[in-house]
Amino acid sequence: MHTTVGIIGAGPAGLLLARLLHQAGVDSVVLEARDREYVEQRQRAGILEQVTVDALRAAGAGERMDREGIVHHGIELRFAGRSQRIDFAVLAGGRGVMVYAQTEMVKDLIALHLAHGGPLLFEAGVSSVGAVGAVGTADDDRIAVRYRRDGREQTLTCDWAVGCDGFHGVTKDAVPADLRHTYERTYPYSWLGILADAPPVYDELIYAHSDRGFALASMRSDTVSRLYLQVPNGTDPAAWSDDRIWDELDRRFATRADPGWKLTRGPITAKSVLPMRSHVTEPMRHGRVLLAGDTAHIVPPTGAKGLNLATGDVIILARALAHWKETGSAELLDAYSDTCLERVWRAEHFSYFMTTTLHVDPDQSAFDTRLQLSQLARIAASPHAAAELAQNYVGIPIAGERAPQKG
Amino acid sequence: MHTTVGIIGAGPAGLLLARLLHQAGVDSVVLEARDREYVEQRQRAGILEQVTVDALRAAGAGERMDREGIVHHGIELRFAGRSQRIDFAVLAGGRGVMVYAQTEMVKDLIALHLAHGGPLLFEAGVSSVGAVGAVGTADDDRIAVRYRRDGREQTLTCDWAVGCDGFHGVTKDAVPADLRHTYERTYPYSWLGILADAPPVYDELIYAHSDRGFALASMRSDTVSRLYLQVPNGTDPAAWSDDRIWDELDRRFATRADPGWKLTRGPITAKSVLPMRSHVTEPMRHGRVLLAGDTAHIVPPTGAKGLNLATGDVIILARALAHWKETGSAELLDAYSDTCLERVWRAEHFSYFMTTTLHVDPDQSAFDTRLQLSQLARIAASPHAAAELAQNYVGIPIAGERAPQKG
Repeated sequence: MHTTVGIIGAGPAGLLLARLLHQAGVDSVVLEARDREYVEQRQRAGILEQVTVDALRAAGAGERMDREGIVHHGIELRFAGRSQRIDFAVLAGGRGVMVYAQTEMVKDLIALHLAHGGPLLFEAGVSSVGAVGAVGTADDDRIAVRYRRDGREQTLTCDWAVGCDGFHGVTKDAVPADLRHTYERTYPYSWLGILADAPPVYDELIYAHSDRGFALASMRSDTVSRLYLQVPNGTDPAAWSDDRIWDELDRRFATRADPGWKLTRGPITAKSVLPMRSHVTEPMRHGRVLLAGDTAHIVPPTGAKGLNLATGDVIILARALAHWKETGSAELLDAYSDTCLERVWRAEHFSYFMTTTLHVDPDQSAFDTRLQLSQLARIAASPHAAAELAQNYVGIPIAGERAPQKG
Repeated sequence: MHTTVGIIGAGPAGLLLARLLHQAGVDSVVLEARDREYVEQRQRAGILEQVTVDALRAAGAGERMDREGIVHHGIELRFAGRSQRIDFAVLAGGRGVMVYAQTEMVKDLIALHLAHGGPLLFEAGVSSVGAVGAVGTADDDRIAVRYRRDGREQTLTCDWAVGCDGFHGVTKDAVPADLRHTYERTYPYSWLGILADAPPVYDELIYAHSDRGFALASMRSDTVSRLYLQVPNGTDPAAWSDDRIWDELDRRFATRADPGWKLTRGPITAKSVLPMRSHVTEPMRHGRVLLAGDTAHIVPPTGAKGLNLATGDVIILARALAHWKETGSAELLDAYSDTCLERVWRAEHFSYFMTTTLHVDPDQSAFDTRLQLSQLARIAASPHAAAELAQNYVGIPIAGERAPQKG
């Protein structure tokens, strides 16, 4: 089988890329190791930046999102017993974010692409990506993607291969180890995340710094809450009873003005522990192999940048591939890695900033805690500090994109 | 001897306080352990914020500063081979900073206070500060300051005692250890600072992040440069020859656009190593003993906050003591510690931010370096990020002060 663009991985990055290429008249084949049900069910992000929202609409996958998604024009910070709203309408030029679960976005993209798109093959596990005839190098004119499906080893050849197979995927290995630079940081805490059949108590997200640790109140819909607690690394979710989780959440969100403030409780339907990591692999291109999304970079979830960075990558990439297809010029593909990495490092920094400002490091000193509280108080007091947070939060526009639409 | 306000220490904080109190008709006595020559010669800061400039003028000590000082309306950042000016005129509402050496400010204040002020006693080493009759407590109505002068133990009694005797001074001990909270951070690097008889090559300060470490080009006048290099803790200044210092400075300031850029060299007249520390002692008042400046807080020098925090404290304190004297009400004195500490923690955070963003920690990872460069690139790209730096740099106005004057 041959195609123009071989896409490894049917997460949001691979699926959106396939749709954007389809719109631009560029053929692709998507290979996904897992089955459709697994891909559609895995819980991930739920906050879409304007660039992501615009891209989903451009890809023809915005209809249900626009009907069911919830637009937010602010977040609330809680710290030192205070609460402070960060108003995106004022501070970020009217841009906002859309609450719409990644699972739903993935379902929409899969249904659309299967109905009107190129091949999207589930249970097709890729074993290697490399130059035709010489796996492990990538400087040939065509790329061979070896995969196993229906019990048989098969090969997809393509002009370009795009790794959307995540941090643990194989595509990254097509970049020779001696050309690959990796940058990493781990954090001395994790998140205990729950889904609950309980209406969100507040109509925006609440990010809380407390001396007991970080907490985040998010939502998936008007009836489903998504809530997170900072917990030690290695925490067993089973050690946290439902009551203990609710009690701890209420304690971390309490304010001096409203110490009795409580979340609305409901049945907890999922409970899991998420580790926190920062990771960047450079460059994001080697020859005709391109890396996108989690394949090349991971951010800790504070600030909701992971999914949006991935969609940013594939928006830039789809434009570059369409330009190559149309003109024969690889100039945008040559710029792909640098163009993405500038946005990636911005998001890495912002995610690190949000994470280290809001969490309590078990080893932090009383001095460190005072610095966090001074930083948070400054965000509450200074329009510039607040705007800097708001603009990073709603997302940095992609260079050369048209001005974002309100939505 | 009795006075209204006993001031321990004739550094800039103690001297400015004495002048402001004199202007307000409040008596004081200043006791300084060292001799006049020592106090007038010790090299310290040289960047005055608007609040400090205004206070010196209000104290009648602004005349020579206004004649010889140099007003700056920006700084330059250098990083990753780039240079970026931060324009205070645009970003900080026209406020600026005044380059005028602390040594000169101290000389002006001493001369003025000896000519037209209360007693200012040099070589008067204070051994203890406490309640009359019970040294070590501070809840009496009057305070006894015991000191040695002319070979004799003497006692100054006062209604209020103000510790301006610095980090190693004795006044801090008047706050009982069990009521004192201290917050500290040390840094894994120091500054090698030099004074050189060489005209500054650039008319504003240059703060440089390089992979060789931090460097700062400052000045004392049109003919004297003040320059700093990040060096390891424990560095012996004698290990750095003049040529080595100039060569290393040139390397750290080099930009891609102008790799041959060089400082103007001249005779190095002073060379010393400055350690970097953050420290806060809370509260800043116990009974009738008040702490000001370095006595209560130390910042690392990046950002030039130390002297300005000290003058901020005594401006707030002079106003509170004048209010007490005039009305008998201690309400401003009761608020003194909290009022100062809010500004102190802002400056502690900013100084930490400038220090950790611009220096290379010997243990930092490649990831950490990329975050620094992303932060610096963001300051160059985002007016909000730049304004946040500029406004902290020129100084946060004191609450309740009149709007700062241009100058």
